[in-house]
Order: sequence, then structure tokens, then C-alpha cells
Amino acid sequence: MSVECFETKEKDLLGRIGILHTKSGRLETPYLFPVVNPNIQPIPPKEIKKLGFPGVITNSYIIWKKTVAGMVPGDVHRLLNFDGIIATDSGAYQILQYGDVEVPPVEIVGFQEKLNTDIGVILDVPTGANPDRKVAFHSVLETIRRADGAMEALSRADILWEGPIQGGVHLDLVRRSAREMSRRPFSIYALGSPTPSMEQYSFDYLVDMVAAARIFIPMNRPLHLFGAGHPIMLSLAAALGCDLFDSAAYAIFARAGRYLTNQGTFKIRDLSYFPCACPECTATDPDSVRKLGRGDQEIFLARHNLHVSRQEVETVKQAIADGRLWELVSARSRSHPALRDAFTRFVRLSDHFEQHTPATKKRGLFVSGALDLFRPEIVRYNKRLIERRRKKSRVKVLLLVPQNVPKRRIRSLRKLITFAEHNRSIDVCYYGGPYDLIPSELTESFPLAQTESADVISTASSRTVVLKSFLRINSYRKVMLVKDGGRADEAHLLLKRLSRSHRFKLIAVEMKRARSLLRALKQL
Amino acid sequence: MSVECFETKEKDLLGRIGILHTKSGRLETPYLFPVVNPNIQPIPPKEIKKLGFPGVITNSYIIWKKTVAGMVPGDVHRLLNFDGIIATDSGAYQILQYGDVEVPPVEIVGFQEKLNTDIGVILDVPTGANPDRKVAFHSVLETIRRADGAMEALSRADILWEGPIQGGVHLDLVRRSAREMSRRPFSIYALGSPTPSMEQYSFDYLVDMVAAARIFIPMNRPLHLFGAGHPIMLSLAAALGCDLFDSAAYAIFARAGRYLTNQGTFKIRDLSYFPCACPECTATDPDSVRKLGRGDQEIFLARHNLHVSRQEVETVKQAIADGRLWELVSARSRSHPALRDAFTRFVRLSDHFEQHTPATKKRGLFVSGALDLFRPEIVRYNKRLIERRRKKSRVKVLLLVPQNVPKRRIRSLRKLITFAEHNRSIDVCYYGGPYDLIPSELTESFPLAQTESADVISTASSRTVVLKSFLRINSYRKVMLVKDGGRADEAHLLLKRLSRSHRFKLIAVEMKRARSLLRALKQL
Repeated sequence: MSVECFETKEKDLLGRIGILHTKSGRLETPYLFPVVNPNIQPIPPKEIKKLGFPGVITNSYIIWKKTVAGMVPGDVHRLLNFDGIIATDSGAYQILQYGDVEVPPVEIVGFQEKLNTDIGVILDVPTGANPDRKVAFHSVLETIRRADGAMEALSRADILWEGPIQGGVHLDLVRRSAREMSRRPFSIYALGSPTPSMEQYSFDYLVDMVAAARIFIPMNRPLHLFGAGHPIMLSLAAALGCDLFDSAAYAIFARAGRYLTNQGTFKIRDLSYFPCACPECTATDPDSVRKLGRGDQEIFLARHNLHVSRQEVETVKQAIADGRLWELVSARSRSHPALRDAFTRFVRLSDHFEQHTPATKKRGLFVSGALDLFRPEIVRYNKRLIERRRKKSRVKVLLLVPQNVPKRRIRSLRKLITFAEHNRSIDVCYYGGPYDLIPSELTESFPLAQTESADVISTASSRTVVLKSFLRINSYRKVMLVKDGGRADEAHLLLKRLSRSHRFKLIAVEMKRARSLLRALKQL
Repeated sequence: MSVECFETKEKDLLGRIGILHTKSGRLETPYLFPVVNPNIQPIPPKEIKKLGFPGVITNSYIIWKKTVAGMVPGDVHRLLNFDGIIATDSGAYQILQYGDVEVPPVEIVGFQEKLNTDIGVILDVPTGANPDRKVAFHSVLETIRRADGAMEALSRADILWEGPIQGGVHLDLVRRSAREMSRRPFSIYALGSPTPSMEQYSFDYLVDMVAAARIFIPMNRPLHLFGAGHPIMLSLAAALGCDLFDSAAYAIFARAGRYLTNQGTFKIRDLSYFPCACPECTATDPDSVRKLGRGDQEIFLARHNLHVSRQEVETVKQAIADGRLWELVSARSRSHPALRDAFTRFVRLSDHFEQHTPATKKRGLFVSGALDLFRPEIVRYNKRLIERRRKKSRVKVLLLVPQNVPKRRIRSLRKLITFAEHNRSIDVCYYGGPYDLIPSELTESFPLAQTESADVISTASSRTVVLKSFLRINSYRKVMLVKDGGRADEAHLLLKRLSRSHRFKLIAVEMKRARSLLRALKQL
């Protein structure tokens, strides 16, 4: 089995743009496989490819059942009349729906080989949303057992196999399953059972589940999030390190008269306008679509849904290439409070993000709210400041100046700063912006100079950990503070407390009295 | 002049969907007029119409200059080969660029009549970004003088005329200009000089400027925001009550190799993917476009830019129809910190929004952050609670229960609430969610039952005004509080303070002790 089938081109957060090599060609990830039912195809796979999808996923179990009835399947590419990349699922979805399937696990693996699939899935036991820990535990163990059985039964080396991770809502089981499965040489790992949590909009839970699994899967292997693909959550899942998605939503929603957007789902009967520029939507209007027959309406919606799904995948990829995935997830998280709750969980993952986000970026950083203070670039900067930055021994005085200064005060502060910067016994640091503390010699370095921040940050800031650690490590004799005019002036209160334990002399003045500090510095 | 040319179909915040009746047909607003240069047309107006724009704007001054050189213009519709709605600007942009124009103000008005324009603009004196108050003041007075002169010179009644409001960065002058102009019977009002503030991304300033003007313009007249139309700011401006936009950005940006999106502008050379589903973008890829000749690349970009601009207008309209304009502005405000700063200004406008937002909505409300607590529905609810809700005289006790309760506590709290609700001397209110205080009899009414809120709210809440006023007006003998488990438990601290001045007895218990309250209630 070819395990080394994946290369990473660009990274941001835990997301990446990658190339998956299959025997039918290369697939760029993140990628969303449209689900094709071998029996019913409102949009033929050939046409799906023209809409920008070089790969589809279908269900080998449904085909297998037909062979039981006498059908000779042959190559799945010919069966679907699709000359792109085909992935095949194994019937686990049917287990979720009907409790069990009729095919032995090893047989369906061999059957997928016979189908000449490009990417196969072993027959796992999906945990689903089962709250019973025992049942969930069994599904994890049984999936592992079947994985080992399947591995032994494989006869071809050119198919990529996916190893499903189970555990459902039991995060410890997800971790265990991920650890065990990652020891087996699958080309791709897959996270099962997210669908129920997505149907209930429990995106916060989805974050925990993906994060629990992703940490055990080597970063050079792709992760497939089973049954996920609504444009509203693609950026979120990609940021957590999901590379492959598959979704029948485009077709199922179309049948139910539902219209996908990256802001959520609309019922076609409620739409007065199409908030979309796709070729389908620009050619008509909601009233005309409502007048179509059921079948034509379904095809219109399915096509639109595919267009908008592809658009969101491309948007995610461009955001990764730009290093702006955080910004995209943040913007999308405003589409629904449940997504906002999910995005809030990113705070806990900031160290994990930090390890995988590139050190420099092509485009600048945007900081628009308190959550953004946990983005990896800021977390990393704060860490390094404490780890690496040491004052020179000749330096006795620290001058702290606010980062956001009203225009009319800029001139007098500028004088003070310039004087201090030219004095070899004084360090100048800025405080009160998105970065807790910026030594003046660093202001032009990445990402400090590349950060654009909303005003909201400077007043919302109540972060003290960095200042505390900084003063513990760099022991100054005097700390001079120009207050930032915030009502509580938290920095001042904090420094007053610290001055006792850290034994420095504190001199604090209002911004309009900055001149008095200049006089004091000149007398040093 | 036909002043009554505008009807409002749907409203949300200060935005609305309206119909503007012109002699060449109806125009649905919000509407963005693509600017057509009478001399250079990378995309012919006819084709612009096919892309979904039934109206364009062109410059009557440029045409007038040609007539000086001997050209006989005739009908502007024939001149542009465009059978839709044509608006004509008057040369004010040229004044901004070159300091003055050669045509007398009254002559250019008559010239627009001769052109058979559908919507004309008098020749105003644009303030621009001029920081000199005297110059700005002059531009305001001179514009008013010219407005009066133009009004007298008009000979046709079938053209809609726009009255420009000046004042630039001087908000008092903007207000004065708006007040004076609104006394003149223009069909449409127009806000001049926003372009400089938009080029510098001073969207917060734009909010102040539009708000200053809009308050004086009758709501049954449309407002045109001159020279604005980037998809990134359309929802913001529409929410402030701007109905018409015009922009040459689609063409100017195209010439400069720039690609518009509702998240911002990309340089075509930096794009690896098209984050777009428009017919242009789905038919090709960035590499292929970069290989095109300069002219073809410009046409590709201009077409894409028009598609995405129209898409954003449609998105805004659907959001107004859904009552979700606040959500859309909030989501877009995450595209740039400057937009975030601008959105923050909405807090100051909440009373103004409240007056114009409909009392009920088709779709529910999303509350995802602290700013959302200032959305009009919540502001209105709080106001009415204080104005209208009075306790019955037999009621002696207020029971305060947190809105967000951990699952394992729900049962015991449920018992307490049920008992209290059936006791005629007890009022039950919920606190600590997006609505400060909810009497239990109101929980099923709009918008309370239709609000979905992120968890983030309950812990961020530190609002006390409503609770304070409520307790002043409804004097209870006893207030019983189930604490919400927040670290500081601000409600408890507040109630302790209030219990002295308002003379009620306070009994506060932790959530896990809710049973003890039930016992206390039973003994009442």
C-alpha cells in the first residue's frame, strides 16, 4: 500500500494545501468529494467533473448488493462513466442507518479492489452519536480489529486505503482510536461520526473531536472528515487539519428545496434574491426557479450547491496561501452562534496551531477582536519574547509607552521616545495593543509591523501575564510608565503590585504629562 | 419635478429595499450604478445590463465638453447604446480632481435635460477631504445656492434630480448641509466626498458622516452615496440608510490588475485560486488569466468585479428581507479591522436603528458577541420592559434564575421555576443571557424565543442598567437569586448594593442549592 501519497504545499494553522497522489491522478486538498449514488444521479458524474470536481465518492456496498442480485460491476470508473478519481465508501453509513450490513468486512475490501477504486475505505463500525460508552468502546475496538483483518486481505498496492477513527462523543475513545489507527499504515485517516453533531449544529463538539484525533495522526497523512461538507463549516474544519470532505448535502438539500451558502442554508421558497454569482443563479431568479418542475428545480439547486461548495473550498485554499485562514474562520464564525462557540474553542488549541503555522506570511495579520489575541502569531511572539529577549546589563530603566496614542499627543511622546532610544541605559517598550509588549527595536519585524488592529483591542486588553514574566526575567531598577488613558489603567495597577515583589521604582504619569518623564530621564 | 418617486418594500436597521420610479423604468434599491465613461468602455453598457445592471451612471460634463468641440449629443441613451436607466453626474468629480470646471452650474443642469437623462445631479461644489473648515463651509453654502439656482432653471418634470450634501469631515457642516438640502424638493439626496475616507479605509468616519446626514433626510427619500461601491462596504452603508451607490471601482481596479471580493481586494498576480463561482471565474483559473493580454485580462477582471458587486447587492437585499442585515454587517466587519472599528460605531446609533427596524421578523436573531447586545431588537426589548412591564400588586417576591444552566442542574431548577410560576405572589425572571432580564411570561414572545445566542454572551455580560431600572419601578419585598456561577457573579454584587436603597430582602444561593430556595418559597 502506498503510504507516502501526500505532500504539503502550504500551511496555516493546522490547515494545509496538499497534493494527494492516486493512481488516477493528483488531487489538490482541501478537497470535497461530491457523493454519487450509483443508482440515482440527478447530476451525472461527468457533469460534476465539469463543475470543477475531479473526484467523486460512491458507495461500494450499494454496488456489492447489486452483484448479489447478479450484476457484474467491472471498473467503477466505467460504471459511473467518470474518468476522474473515485473514492469508495464501504457501507458504514448503512450500518448507522440500518444497524448492520450483509457483507463481511474482508469481502467488501476485496470488492473495492475489484472495482478498481482509487481510494478505498475499510468497513468500520461507526460510533455515531451513541451516548453509551460501552457501545462506543466496542465500535472503536471492532474497527481496529477489522482494520488489521483488512490489511492482511489486501492484494493490490496501488489503491489508497482510509483508516477510520471512531469514538464519537467520547473524546478519550477518539484519542485512543486515533492513536491505535495511526500505528497502522493507512494512506489516509478518516474521522467517523461527525454528521450527528453537525446536524445539531454542535460545531463546538466537532472542534473537540477533530482536535482530539488530529493530534495523533502524523501531519504528513491527510485526514478525511466523513460526511461533512456544508460550506458554512469547511474553513473551520480545514483549520483543524481536515483535508478531505465528502458530502451528499448538495443533492439531499437540493431534493428538499434547500439552497446552500457560506452563511447558511436557505429554503428556496424563502428566497427573494440569489446571494450568489454562479452561472446558474446569474441566469435566472428565485421566482422563475420556483415555477420550475420538481426535477428541474432539484437540478438547479444541486448545481448551485456544487458551485458554492467548490467556491468555499477555493476560498479556504486562497486563505491558506495568504496566511489568512484565521481571518476566514473568524468571519464565517459570525454566520451562526454555534460556529462562534466553536471558534471560541480555538483558544485552547493555540499552542497546537502555533507549532504548525509558518514563521512568516505574505500578507499582514488582522486583529479585530479579543479572540484574535490567541492567534498563533501572537501566541508565538509572546512566547519568544519571554524565552529569548534579555535586557543588556547596562540597561537600568524601562520606559513603557502606550501603543495607541491620540494624534494630538504624538509629538510630545515622540520626543520622549527618541531621547530614550538613544540612551544606552534605557529600554523602550510599547504596551496596550494586540501584542502585550513590544521592545522598540522589534517594531519593524514580522509580524509586528504587518499587523492591522481594530481600536477595540487596546481598551479590551487586560492581559498581564506577559508583562509579569518580562519584568521577572529582566530586572530593571526603574520602570517609567506613560499611562494609556484607559479608565482603569490596568497596566498601572499591575505595575504598582509588581514593584513591591520585583523591587523596581515605578514612576507613572498621564499621557499629557509625558514631558515630566523626559525631564526625569535627562537627569538619569 | 416628481419627488414622490420612491416606495419602501422592506426595512431593516436603517436599510431598506425600495423601488425608485424613473421615466425609463423601475429600479430596485439598494442599487449600485456602474460608472460608464462616455469615451472608454472596456465593457459596453449593453453588456453591463446583461450582467444584471438595469441602470448605469455616466458623466454629463465629459459629454458637454465634446459638444463644445462641435459634437451634437442627442439622447444619452442612444449615445451609450443603453436602453435602461441612465443617471448623469455633473462634473463635481472633475472639480475635485482639477479644482474647477468650465461649465456654468445652470447650463449643465439644462444640458442634462437635453440629454434626456433619467436621474440628474446639480453641479455641486464637493468638499472632498478638505480639513479647512472655511473652505468646507463655503462648499456647503455654494452647493445650496446652486441647488436653488438649478431648481429655478429646470424645465422638465420627468427627470429625478439629486441634491448633494457636502461638509466632508466636518460633521456639523454635514448636518447643516443635510438640513438645508432636505428643505429643497429633491427626489434623491446624495452624500458627497466619501471617496477619500474610503480610500484610507476610514470606514468609522464614513459611518459618522452618513449617520449625520441620514437623520435629516426624510426616510421616504433615497440617499445616494457618491463614488462608493466596493463590495466590502456595501452592507455597512446600506445598513445606515444608503440606497444608491455608484462606482467605477470595477473598471479602475480591473485596469490595475485588481480582483474584488466581499472580503477585500486581491492583486491578480497574488491569487492562486479564485474564491468565486461567477461564470468568468468558474471557466478559467488565475494562471490562465495572468497569461492573457493586458486588454483581455482587464475585461476578465471588470466582468468578475461586476459579478461580485452585484452578488453583494443581492446578498444585502436578501439580508434585509430576512431581517438579518445586522448579522451580515457583523460578518463583513471581520474582513478588515477598519470595518470592525466602523461597526463598533453602530452602538451609538442603536436608538436610531431601533426606530426603523420592523417589530417582527421572519427569521430568528443571532447573537454572537458583545456588540450584538446593541442590536435594535434587544435595545427595543429592554426599553419596553422598563416602560411597560409592571408587577401586579399582589406580587411580593421576585425570583431571578440564570438563563444558561448546565444540563445537570436543569431538573432541580425546573422544579423551582414551576413552583414559583404557579404561585400568584411570585414573579419569575431570567437573567444573564443576551436579554438582560426576561419575565417568565414573555419567554415565548418575539424576539426572545427567536434568538440564538453564543455561550460567549452569558459570561461577558456585565450589564446592570436594566436590572436597576426594573427594580426601581417594580418594588418587591424579597428578591431571590439563583447565582449563575460566573466568577464575579456581578448580578449578586449589584443586588446587594440595590437591596439597601430599594429596601428588599435579598436571598442568594448557588445553583446547586436551588432546592433551599424552593423550601423558602413553600414557606411564604
